[in-house]
Amino acid sequence: MKKYVYFFSRNDVEGNKDMRDLLGGKGANLAEMSGIGIPVPPGFTVSTDACNLYTSSGNTISEDIQKEILENLSKLENAAGQKFGDKENPLLVSVRSGAKFSMPGMMDTILNLGLNDTTVESLAKKSGVRRFALDCYRRLIHMFGDVVLDVSKKEFETILKTIKDHAGVVNDYDLTEKHMEKVISEYRALVQKGTGKDFPQDVREQLFLAVSAVFSSWNTPRAITYRRLNHLPNDLGTAVNVQLMIFGNFGETSATGVGFTRDPANGRKKLYGEYLVNAQGEDVVAGIRTPSPIENLEEEMPRIFQELKDITTQLENHYKDIQDFEFTIQEDKLYMLQTRSGKRTGQAAVKIAVDLVEEGLISKERAIMLVEPDSLNQLLHPVFDVKEKATHDKIAKGLAASPGAAAGQVVFTANDAVDWKKDGKKIILVRDETSPDDIHGMSASQGLLTATGGMTSHAAVVGRQMGKPAIVGCEALVLNEKEKSFTAGGQKIKEGEWISIDGTSGEVLKGEIKTRPSVIIQVVKGDIKPEESELYLNFSKLLSWADGFRELNVRANADTPEDAQIAFAFGAEGIGLTRTEHMFFDNERLPFIKAMILAETEEERRDNIGKLLPFQRKDFYELFKAMKGNPVTIRTLDPPLHEFLPKKEDLMVEIATLKASGKEDKKKTQELVQLLERVNTLSEFNPMLGHRGCRLGITYPEVIEMQARAIFEAACQLVKEGQNVRPEIMVPLIGSAEELADQKAIIVRVAGELIEQSGIDLDYTVGTMIEIPRAAITAADVAKEAEFFSFGTNDLTQTTFGISRDDGASFINHYLLHGIWKDDPFQTIDIDGVGELMKWAVEKGRQTRPDLKVGICGVHGGDPRSIVFCNKIRLNYVSCSAYQIPIARLAAAQAALKEKDVV
Amino acid sequence: MKKYVYFFSRNDVEGNKDMRDLLGGKGANLAEMSGIGIPVPPGFTVSTDACNLYTSSGNTISEDIQKEILENLSKLENAAGQKFGDKENPLLVSVRSGAKFSMPGMMDTILNLGLNDTTVESLAKKSGVRRFALDCYRRLIHMFGDVVLDVSKKEFETILKTIKDHAGVVNDYDLTEKHMEKVISEYRALVQKGTGKDFPQDVREQLFLAVSAVFSSWNTPRAITYRRLNHLPNDLGTAVNVQLMIFGNFGETSATGVGFTRDPANGRKKLYGEYLVNAQGEDVVAGIRTPSPIENLEEEMPRIFQELKDITTQLENHYKDIQDFEFTIQEDKLYMLQTRSGKRTGQAAVKIAVDLVEEGLISKERAIMLVEPDSLNQLLHPVFDVKEKATHDKIAKGLAASPGAAAGQVVFTANDAVDWKKDGKKIILVRDETSPDDIHGMSASQGLLTATGGMTSHAAVVGRQMGKPAIVGCEALVLNEKEKSFTAGGQKIKEGEWISIDGTSGEVLKGEIKTRPSVIIQVVKGDIKPEESELYLNFSKLLSWADGFRELNVRANADTPEDAQIAFAFGAEGIGLTRTEHMFFDNERLPFIKAMILAETEEERRDNIGKLLPFQRKDFYELFKAMKGNPVTIRTLDPPLHEFLPKKEDLMVEIATLKASGKEDKKKTQELVQLLERVNTLSEFNPMLGHRGCRLGITYPEVIEMQARAIFEAACQLVKEGQNVRPEIMVPLIGSAEELADQKAIIVRVAGELIEQSGIDLDYTVGTMIEIPRAAITAADVAKEAEFFSFGTNDLTQTTFGISRDDGASFINHYLLHGIWKDDPFQTIDIDGVGELMKWAVEKGRQTRPDLKVGICGVHGGDPRSIVFCNKIRLNYVSCSAYQIPIARLAAAQAALKEKDVV
Repeated sequence: MKKYVYFFSRNDVEGNKDMRDLLGGKGANLAEMSGIGIPVPPGFTVSTDACNLYTSSGNTISEDIQKEILENLSKLENAAGQKFGDKENPLLVSVRSGAKFSMPGMMDTILNLGLNDTTVESLAKKSGVRRFALDCYRRLIHMFGDVVLDVSKKEFETILKTIKDHAGVVNDYDLTEKHMEKVISEYRALVQKGTGKDFPQDVREQLFLAVSAVFSSWNTPRAITYRRLNHLPNDLGTAVNVQLMIFGNFGETSATGVGFTRDPANGRKKLYGEYLVNAQGEDVVAGIRTPSPIENLEEEMPRIFQELKDITTQLENHYKDIQDFEFTIQEDKLYMLQTRSGKRTGQAAVKIAVDLVEEGLISKERAIMLVEPDSLNQLLHPVFDVKEKATHDKIAKGLAASPGAAAGQVVFTANDAVDWKKDGKKIILVRDETSPDDIHGMSASQGLLTATGGMTSHAAVVGRQMGKPAIVGCEALVLNEKEKSFTAGGQKIKEGEWISIDGTSGEVLKGEIKTRPSVIIQVVKGDIKPEESELYLNFSKLLSWADGFRELNVRANADTPEDAQIAFAFGAEGIGLTRTEHMFFDNERLPFIKAMILAETEEERRDNIGKLLPFQRKDFYELFKAMKGNPVTIRTLDPPLHEFLPKKEDLMVEIATLKASGKEDKKKTQELVQLLERVNTLSEFNPMLGHRGCRLGITYPEVIEMQARAIFEAACQLVKEGQNVRPEIMVPLIGSAEELADQKAIIVRVAGELIEQSGIDLDYTVGTMIEIPRAAITAADVAKEAEFFSFGTNDLTQTTFGISRDDGASFINHYLLHGIWKDDPFQTIDIDGVGELMKWAVEKGRQTRPDLKVGICGVHGGDPRSIVFCNKIRLNYVSCSAYQIPIARLAAAQAALKEKDVV
Repeated sequence: MKKYVYFFSRNDVEGNKDMRDLLGGKGANLAEMSGIGIPVPPGFTVSTDACNLYTSSGNTISEDIQKEILENLSKLENAAGQKFGDKENPLLVSVRSGAKFSMPGMMDTILNLGLNDTTVESLAKKSGVRRFALDCYRRLIHMFGDVVLDVSKKEFETILKTIKDHAGVVNDYDLTEKHMEKVISEYRALVQKGTGKDFPQDVREQLFLAVSAVFSSWNTPRAITYRRLNHLPNDLGTAVNVQLMIFGNFGETSATGVGFTRDPANGRKKLYGEYLVNAQGEDVVAGIRTPSPIENLEEEMPRIFQELKDITTQLENHYKDIQDFEFTIQEDKLYMLQTRSGKRTGQAAVKIAVDLVEEGLISKERAIMLVEPDSLNQLLHPVFDVKEKATHDKIAKGLAASPGAAAGQVVFTANDAVDWKKDGKKIILVRDETSPDDIHGMSASQGLLTATGGMTSHAAVVGRQMGKPAIVGCEALVLNEKEKSFTAGGQKIKEGEWISIDGTSGEVLKGEIKTRPSVIIQVVKGDIKPEESELYLNFSKLLSWADGFRELNVRANADTPEDAQIAFAFGAEGIGLTRTEHMFFDNERLPFIKAMILAETEEERRDNIGKLLPFQRKDFYELFKAMKGNPVTIRTLDPPLHEFLPKKEDLMVEIATLKASGKEDKKKTQELVQLLERVNTLSEFNPMLGHRGCRLGITYPEVIEMQARAIFEAACQLVKEGQNVRPEIMVPLIGSAEELADQKAIIVRVAGELIEQSGIDLDYTVGTMIEIPRAAITAADVAKEAEFFSFGTNDLTQTTFGISRDDGASFINHYLLHGIWKDDPFQTIDIDGVGELMKWAVEKGRQTRPDLKVGICGVHGGDPRSIVFCNKIRLNYVSCSAYQIPIARLAAAQAALKEKDVV
């Protein structure tokens, strides 16, 4: 017969720490601690299998399992020398849930189970303190009422509060026996009222109801949402731990507390925590009494403190990680109730991982696995002071698109942003949405706030790219651009007013909250020496270890020499994506590109393109130089031409206003009408699917010719100057081999001419983005032309799903909230759909060209879960924004280690 | 050694009609005719292999092939009893190109080759008519100069014209010997001037130059474009036919002519053609002299006429198809120079195919293969009178999106269209583009003309759907909607002026050209009895034969009971697509859908949706009724909601105008501003990839609930009335099984309730469109939920290519013109990309659900080449517009026959 219940006591342990699947984290660790001689109150764990069986059999505990629970209960009675429900010497137990992964705040605990009207008096007699027994009983009714019987917690609290107020006391422990009796009586009346039944006096009924309640809690909407947000599977189930009660509320020699073996905020090695004398666990959490810092225990109970230190050190050595523990002291005796790996900040994670290696406790591989890659973000972005933040009005909440904190004065246009910045002001750019011609304003801002857009909208992508905090899709915002104000949360904010945005939480707050830049950034930018920052040293040590294990190369998406320098400082091994069009938006250059678009003859067009050549050549020269001989992938012109022109509706409004005003300037109107005609001709219903990418290059070959010329003139120049250069020219938006062949022919011709003229040697490659499903499907063909592939997973996700990243936010959020999808495919690669195309493309591409280099340069290139997939399908590199390079390096190492099953 | 040259004469034939690949159509048929005893001048064919070798070896004829040609030349000398270049008895030959498929006007002919200053006198002597010999010589220099030496044809013509003018004669044959000598001398001077060399006197040089010129002509841009437009491969090559000259210009007993064995315009069985006495081939084409109808030959040369009749009847019986032949008579002796299958109109094709079966000449299978499915279009659309058309000004040319001819007064808005129609006017709706809210105006129009959009733009699709002529993407059009006029071709056309549009050619003409509706349509609509139209009887006979062979079912895309009735009359076996949203655009209903979109609460939304229920129920009731128990596939709401609201820019202009006018109505402005806010919230950057399809149904489940209710209330009602109903509910834009599961749950719940309430039995299925790559990729999963798939190849093509059908026209045209792509994927299924996804989806879907029904309902469902593919991947049905049903029935039969290799 299958076993569903596992016993643990000092002498009889049926589980261990590796049985988390079956016993949950808490249960496995209680068993493990019992096994290695740590003082743990004995008890038993009802397994997650029992939970799943409970769910699948319509929320009932089978008779076999009931029987097994009772058998273990009697083992526990023997171990404790007490009897459950006994009049003389009653056994009391705690019931706690415990899933494989900790789900803080999701499940609840019931203490003092086994008390009823009879046993409460036995406990009173046995302990000699009736008030204590009554205190335990009222706690049981409260917790049981809340967790099992679904009576409102708040009503229990109101009763208690009223009685304390009447008694004129502040603390629970100041209530007398009489008061306690009154509390109990009113609690029971509440239960009677809420459920139509009395509080159960049968202790076995109490036990089975409590176990059922824990099992049921697995499927509450709250728990399902939590698992979705944390990417946890739904079919794990939770275990239930039934354990002998230890009383921290048994007078002044008793206490209860929690702690960490190291500081979870900064990682320093030092016992860290807090405790309460004469209290039970929930008192610490409830925050009614202020707990004492754990250091005080050394004075109050020096022997116990030493014992706690020894035990927690033993636990850390045993588990080889920072431990988050709970303990209870009853009458000067210490018991451990829980131990688990401690949650920590990014900063602490890095320090702990490095320290543990240097203390000889763990291997480098293990250290790499100990740090969540995304948590490195916390090391890079400026932060608010938490206490100051709490004093500011929260006016809205949007999508936390780019982490970090920023405060500034509100402006509404990119040009204003630039002007105000020049005046030395800090500003936050607020827009309905941003577009490439806002780049200069975005760059001038402390942070970005938009009313529309999803996690991969322009503002979000550029925000992360620039390492700037950004909140997008903040739907509560109503902009009035004319009046230069917005309203949100019932408040009106005008241009120039201060707001603060927390890109890590999505919160928009009123007023200025001070921020400080991350130390790591200061080192990378050369403002602090590396040796002056322990954090930086640990950070770079960990990443250099990661480099030793990873198989994927890591490159940066960088458009400017500045980006490239930062990427290089962060360890980028090349540039995986340079968006050449970003170079066109500069005010010096925009007139030429506009003139080119408006040109009526090819000659005029060529003329204006020619004027862009020197600018582009200089850009590429500096980019190549910054990358010091590492490969630089340059993408030819990608966006539709109308992005460089004014918006259609703005022109229409301007013309209509001029005409209706009665003081029309005919010539001006005529010009605007002509411009509008051109804009109309170029405007598209679905620009994402329009005349852009290689389609531009094919219809306007002179543009690609100019770009190729700029690239190879710059490269030849550098080679002459003695620097190694490795250009990789990447053609965007290919859907067929024929399109690439057309563009490649131009590039190869121009390159050949220039290299011959220069009389130097220069190796280069021509490849393509794979960002259209058809390019992936026909990869075998495309690889005949392409020397490399780079997955543009932003566009590939858009086209594979038929969802625009800018427009999808509204319904994707709905899908995620309603559990229709588990993940946002724009955040992490959709393995079943997009991933299938990628796998196919890699396989077919390498069948044609075995040495085909394949990378990824969409936003997924910086997403750790996507990086695991990239490693699995054997990409050569991932490319991400400069600020994501550390994340990618670490995630790549983890991916490689996971795949080899090393750790 | 490989053989490159094939001889043919009455006694020595090396080829036959099945060798078209190698000998070209003309060569194979010359050989075939020689073999069956038809009088054909002997000669030889240089093969297409020789052409390809010529191309691949840098445009040179190998020595081996030169040798082989000379060997065949000497065989020809023997057969003719003449010698090439001989002073006494010179052999003269014609040189003609001939590829596998006829490419009219693409390649040229050289006659009288072998003449030079010496042999021309021998010919004069031998024939006794020096003028004749000189006439032959001047023709040779002209043709050779043009075709081989690339001297301008026009200059030869000018010389001839000048000399005729001087001589005061009109016809070439009125020129005297002296005149001819002058022509020859001036021609030779022209050659000397144009090429720097004299006209070649070496007859072998003449021959090899002529062969080379024919081979080279295969790769002229003109020929490449022709092949692209006609979907012919580029690697076939052309053959060259060298043949003994027969002289139709040898006096009054000589003649030359062309003809058909049946009338190619209407198919009637009757010798049809024309001839010229005393002329060579090019005189017929040149049109200087008006040829006589072939009937006249019966009087002029009765014996020859009878012989021609016998021979052409023999040819038709032999080839089992209408023959297009060329003949020459020299001194009362008839020679056949060419025979091939005759091009014919759709009307003729149908009649000939049916007649040939009934004459016992061919099988039904063969008859089915004889008719180009697309040519059936010609039988359905109204037509212009050709002669009248020629008298009207052509002002622009666009894409021929929906065939047929229409004339009407120009209007610029859908509402105007409806109003003018009410006044009994015929109108042509001219728009920059159309959208679903123009439907009523489109329906009121004779034809549609748009300045933008491609072959699958809204106007094009709806035009074909409605069977209305449409020209789209007519870029020369510049609209001034305010002024209600457009300019094109330098002319300004105002509202109310008449234009005529030819949707078959894409031409826009000024003024009214009278049209007449197709007889077939009149029969289908019940205005003419079937037995009164021979055309209809033949048409339906052929299609009923086709039904006996096809494996694919044919269904219609139909949104209204009227559509359904026509589809049914055309033989639709069900409806494959009903777009329920088209039912919302009716003026009676639009207010409710608008109110629903603008609703601020779910209650208000439900209230307005509820008001649409009776309308939808009635629509479905009538649709089911019209389809008489055949399956009806109903697609749930698909388009984005903003399609039902005014356009953003129109609102902006209206508000700006109100404000700037100085006489602003505050309340009105306020309302507009509020509406604009809602429109802004709903407006999308890429609506094609936005909040539409199942994404709407998931976020607004009440809409789907209403639609399901309308469908099943209608169905239950009909079942009660004793009619069989087979509803198939189709959910659009699914990208994942989970989305379908969500929508299916709603539909199944509503259906279950209503069926139970009605107490009747009703079978229905729930399936999905496959129109997103991800749906195809995850088909195995999707099929767990879907009971059927229907490929929406419009959207699937858009997303697989990442190209919007509305925006792609500009660069797709460029691609096609420059040979980057061979086909427009929006016209015919892209087999390598989209087709690969379809194949995958069918396979994976049927692995999950072996009886999965799979169809197609995109525009490709009516494209014959796509239907071949659909047959190959084992779809169950194709669905197309009502007017394409005949095409699909025929194409499906051809697909099945081709695959079985029956014909």
